[in-house]
Amino acid sequence: MERLNTQVAIIGSGPAGLLLGQLLYKAGIDHIIIEQRCAEYVAARIRAGILEQVSVDLLKKAGVTENLEKYGLTHDGIEILTHQKKYRINLNKLTDGKQVTVYGQTEITKDLMHARQTAKLQSFYDAQNVHIHNFDSNPYVTFEKNGQTYHIDCQFIAGCDGYHGICRASVPQDKIKTFEKVYPFGWLGVLADVPPVADELIYVQSERGFALCSMRSNTRSRYYLQVPITDSVENWSDDAFWQELKNRLDENSRNKLITGISIEKSIAPLRSFITEPMRFGKLFLAGDAAHIVPPTGAKGLNLATADVGFLADALDQYFNQHSSKGINQYSEKCLARVWKAERFSWWMTHLLHRFDNESEFDHRMKQAELSYILESYAGQSSLAENYVGLPFEADKKLEALNV
Amino acid sequence: MERLNTQVAIIGSGPAGLLLGQLLYKAGIDHIIIEQRCAEYVAARIRAGILEQVSVDLLKKAGVTENLEKYGLTHDGIEILTHQKKYRINLNKLTDGKQVTVYGQTEITKDLMHARQTAKLQSFYDAQNVHIHNFDSNPYVTFEKNGQTYHIDCQFIAGCDGYHGICRASVPQDKIKTFEKVYPFGWLGVLADVPPVADELIYVQSERGFALCSMRSNTRSRYYLQVPITDSVENWSDDAFWQELKNRLDENSRNKLITGISIEKSIAPLRSFITEPMRFGKLFLAGDAAHIVPPTGAKGLNLATADVGFLADALDQYFNQHSSKGINQYSEKCLARVWKAERFSWWMTHLLHRFDNESEFDHRMKQAELSYILESYAGQSSLAENYVGLPFEADKKLEALNV
Repeated sequence: MERLNTQVAIIGSGPAGLLLGQLLYKAGIDHIIIEQRCAEYVAARIRAGILEQVSVDLLKKAGVTENLEKYGLTHDGIEILTHQKKYRINLNKLTDGKQVTVYGQTEITKDLMHARQTAKLQSFYDAQNVHIHNFDSNPYVTFEKNGQTYHIDCQFIAGCDGYHGICRASVPQDKIKTFEKVYPFGWLGVLADVPPVADELIYVQSERGFALCSMRSNTRSRYYLQVPITDSVENWSDDAFWQELKNRLDENSRNKLITGISIEKSIAPLRSFITEPMRFGKLFLAGDAAHIVPPTGAKGLNLATADVGFLADALDQYFNQHSSKGINQYSEKCLARVWKAERFSWWMTHLLHRFDNESEFDHRMKQAELSYILESYAGQSSLAENYVGLPFEADKKLEALNV
Repeated sequence: MERLNTQVAIIGSGPAGLLLGQLLYKAGIDHIIIEQRCAEYVAARIRAGILEQVSVDLLKKAGVTENLEKYGLTHDGIEILTHQKKYRINLNKLTDGKQVTVYGQTEITKDLMHARQTAKLQSFYDAQNVHIHNFDSNPYVTFEKNGQTYHIDCQFIAGCDGYHGICRASVPQDKIKTFEKVYPFGWLGVLADVPPVADELIYVQSERGFALCSMRSNTRSRYYLQVPITDSVENWSDDAFWQELKNRLDENSRNKLITGISIEKSIAPLRSFITEPMRFGKLFLAGDAAHIVPPTGAKGLNLATADVGFLADALDQYFNQHSSKGINQYSEKCLARVWKAERFSWWMTHLLHRFDNESEFDHRMKQAELSYILESYAGQSSLAENYVGLPFEADKKLEALNV
């Protein structure tokens, strides 16, 4: 058995774990990442692509925005298409100058892996049988690799190992509370090397179901269709996909759409999931290990990034300023943001998707809500400020009003 | 049989019918009101008490605001209490100067009846066996009173006879579509001659259920408690009512509350109901005959007033400018406003009431939505603009943004 020692053991080498590692490295905090998958698998996973400004700022702090600044597309707005009418949400003007950045999670992961290699930071990929122990007192992590057993003593464990990971599963049932909603549909996604149909994202609400026209770059498009959760990719030829997408678009977009061969095609389920609390003694959960949002509104990666930002600050305070304040507030601080982002993701999902089991009254209420939001400055502002990411601090305009 | 002739027969002498009568009188259009109840019953009904600015303007146009201007209380804000914390919604500042006016519907009805008497306009109260006929071609109304049968030939019929009235019921089933939601609770209301607990309304969201502190004047209070729909007034002594109200309030309000003998106590069910369309040939539905909202947000009387305003304009155009444009657009124009007000009333009801059958996830989503709304300028603006009444025209701030 090989015995190692570090300040923070990070379980999981997705973007959350990698970003945390990079931020700890910048703060001079010693850490090791343990990941059960191989590096190639992690690097190839295709996920979200919309970054809030605060996420970009954190990546900047971690020193990994060279490519993002070169290849990322900043967007000042989104479009919402309903009943053949397109409404532009001017995110920038509605939020006093904020933007979002389109840059694939796959690219962020690669950038972070590259930075980690450059800094020669320690990671164990292909770790088998990973277990976390004693996180109430003197935590340590055990795993196996290439027939060798490892034991890592540490002061804290960061659980960045996703929804199916071992960290949340290691918490005794009576110490944790979870909230969950599973949706009766999934997103059928196609990635294709064709120019996107529009410069900005188009969110489509139609009687045939939701669709999303998105992109990864000016030459790579990402399109999604709402499909029943019971559907399977085999039922969808490329032709069938493009035809159904056209069916849900307005005439103008339909004519502009450039189709091509799909380079990836998959169905992702939609789920809302929240864990309370997010700290258990010396174990912190961050990102998908603690919460899942449906992809509508693109909050998943951004929530993970925010968690990791809070956690890096808290550990910096603990190790470098000898204060426990940050780690004591970690769970509460994250959850305040998490619930609001969960609310927004659920709301956008609810508003834009077709639910077969809703009553006519409920359906019309949704239509009325969408009309109201799209026709009102206050309504659009509310959507916009959530989409670009709510501020970390209190709303200044509201404070000014109540002086 | 006595045979009469008029331009417009108005069925129902509640505030909608009376206001329509007054506006038609001002426009020089001949009309008769037919009401199945006696005048005393109509005058004594206790209903809502919050008027939007556009409703006050219409009453002004009808020339019946002498008392309203003397005794009505203008409010610049409301308070929302949740988790023992009170948030003030500054309606005035959030809506660029709009207000609401507190003035009981009972008083409006009396003012309108008085104006009608002064102008010597014709009404039939205690009309029995009221029927409307031939509203596809040559409409007429029949009824009986004091053993005499009446037949009124008219050009149009205005159905202002409420949810249980005969007008909507006279439309063939295949010509009408209705949407409905019944809530599993009611509002137990108490009217008492005590000064209100606060200058403005307090909407209370609590784990024990919703409550509302409202008033009719500076010396007459109106309080409400959410109770199960199966509850009955006999279960609630005055003492029990005041005690439960205190249980739902914050400490400060609890200490300030002045209790007294109830002069009225009743349980009102909550219902959302919409009829499409609102015109059937020469029959127009207006107010509760066409739609019901739950009382949360106080939209019922204001929607009725808006309908009547549209209808009076349309009939003015028809009779005085020989244009059918107004009557042809009546249904669509009303319904655009109706659906938005229905949405707002449903949403406020949903957000502030306790629903026993909701999942923990749904309950927490509501809490997150309420927190978001109360802590965001955009969120509060959205609530405020709906509360004071959405503008009749397109949102100017939004138009300016998209130029």
